[in-house]
Amino acid sequence: MGRYELEYPKDATNLVKRHGERGIYALEKIHGLINSTLLLHVSFNPPGDSPFPVTLPMIGQMGSFDRPSASLGDPLDLYVHGYVSARMFNVGRDAGAEGVPVCVSASHVDGLVLAVSAFSHSYNYRSAVLFGHAALVTDDAEKLYAMELITDSVVPQRWHNTRLPPTGAEMQSTSILRVRIASGSAKFRDGGVNDDKHDLEDEDALNKVWTGVVPIYSTMGEPVPSGHNRIALPKYASEFFDEFSRDSKEVALKAANKKSE
Amino acid sequence: MGRYELEYPKDATNLVKRHGERGIYALEKIHGLINSTLLLHVSFNPPGDSPFPVTLPMIGQMGSFDRPSASLGDPLDLYVHGYVSARMFNVGRDAGAEGVPVCVSASHVDGLVLAVSAFSHSYNYRSAVLFGHAALVTDDAEKLYAMELITDSVVPQRWHNTRLPPTGAEMQSTSILRVRIASGSAKFRDGGVNDDKHDLEDEDALNKVWTGVVPIYSTMGEPVPSGHNRIALPKYASEFFDEFSRDSKEVALKAANKKSE
Repeated sequence: MGRYELEYPKDATNLVKRHGERGIYALEKIHGLINSTLLLHVSFNPPGDSPFPVTLPMIGQMGSFDRPSASLGDPLDLYVHGYVSARMFNVGRDAGAEGVPVCVSASHVDGLVLAVSAFSHSYNYRSAVLFGHAALVTDDAEKLYAMELITDSVVPQRWHNTRLPPTGAEMQSTSILRVRIASGSAKFRDGGVNDDKHDLEDEDALNKVWTGVVPIYSTMGEPVPSGHNRIALPKYASEFFDEFSRDSKEVALKAANKKSE
Repeated sequence: MGRYELEYPKDATNLVKRHGERGIYALEKIHGLINSTLLLHVSFNPPGDSPFPVTLPMIGQMGSFDRPSASLGDPLDLYVHGYVSARMFNVGRDAGAEGVPVCVSASHVDGLVLAVSAFSHSYNYRSAVLFGHAALVTDDAEKLYAMELITDSVVPQRWHNTRLPPTGAEMQSTSILRVRIASGSAKFRDGGVNDDKHDLEDEDALNKVWTGVVPIYSTMGEPVPSGHNRIALPKYASEFFDEFSRDSKEVALKAANKKSE
């Protein structure tokens, strides 16, 4: 552990304004949330006349090709896989050296917070946002690094448990974006209901309205083998599926049961 | 049932390019996905010099204030609640009559699709995107309509089971955005693994790699009553939590077990 936690500097772009006390700027927390999110939402402005930004769901992971041993709290790049991103990669291909300005968003809902008044309702949630410039990865070694990183983010150790090495056609047809991060922030909410004082003194309302938190969590269920699968589910996979489900439930229950300060 | 399903016309903004055969333009399917998503990602370009679009997680629901009986397949507006959106509402307040161009994204991950090659891996997923112009709702009647719509989207019938009517302070401090939809599209992926032919003929790979689908689904768990709660969990709530969990699991299992065509 170092002596301090690195933070993204606050500026007009990343500052958490509403409920500023919930704002988080520590790299480790923001990168951790990005890495634990199955699907990132990547927004950019496409070329042409359209006034609308475009948001694409993509798979990504924080990493450092130059220093693969870097830890989560270090300055890192975001690598995203272009599964559904033809439009964005065209942008990346055409953009200058700096790349395409993007906003990358990651969110988890951990529970419904049901209060006396509809206006005091909330979610328990964890959300993070990163701002940066995206460019296509052209170097084959970096592309391989990123493909392994991203594949292992879906299921740890998966890369070395697939058919390797990649074919030339696979390398050619796959696009990876590297996002150089400019700034970022996160916002977490946990705990119980925060009702207004006047609602807590309203006997009629208290006798009518159920209040509390409903935890929400994700489960990886019973795997369904393909028709051509020949082997039993390996331990690296089954252990991860169980861990994912356990962790997701644990976070949601902990948030729901946290006593308000 | 009408004679046909309305569709958003395809243009450069909403066209699904990669895996175009998975593209969906029917209003009913797109609106249905938006309505079933706990958290929407709303992107816009903030005023000022920043080159980055900004994405905020927000709660929203499709509706029609002028014709509340409209069905999901009709042209509808999107109402979003400004819980974390001070920056965006400032934009909305400053923008002209047309409003702020936004892109609204909704995504569900229904499963991991693990193939022989890392490059054939995929997710089962449902994602939708809407493009439109966002403006602040200023009329109190429309604001009330939207607050009820959005509250009941979190838990059906919740609005009439909270403390009513809203106070003046609540009405004043709450901002609602109405997004007039310009276009939209969706993309769904379900079914099993699609391995390349050469991988299905690779004995070494088939003997080494586990292939199949891991369903992923959300659960609303055991509700945690607040310290000031006085009543048993009402039926409208418990039934909804169970239905949410059952539906989410059913969709994921159905997608995982679907035979490829």
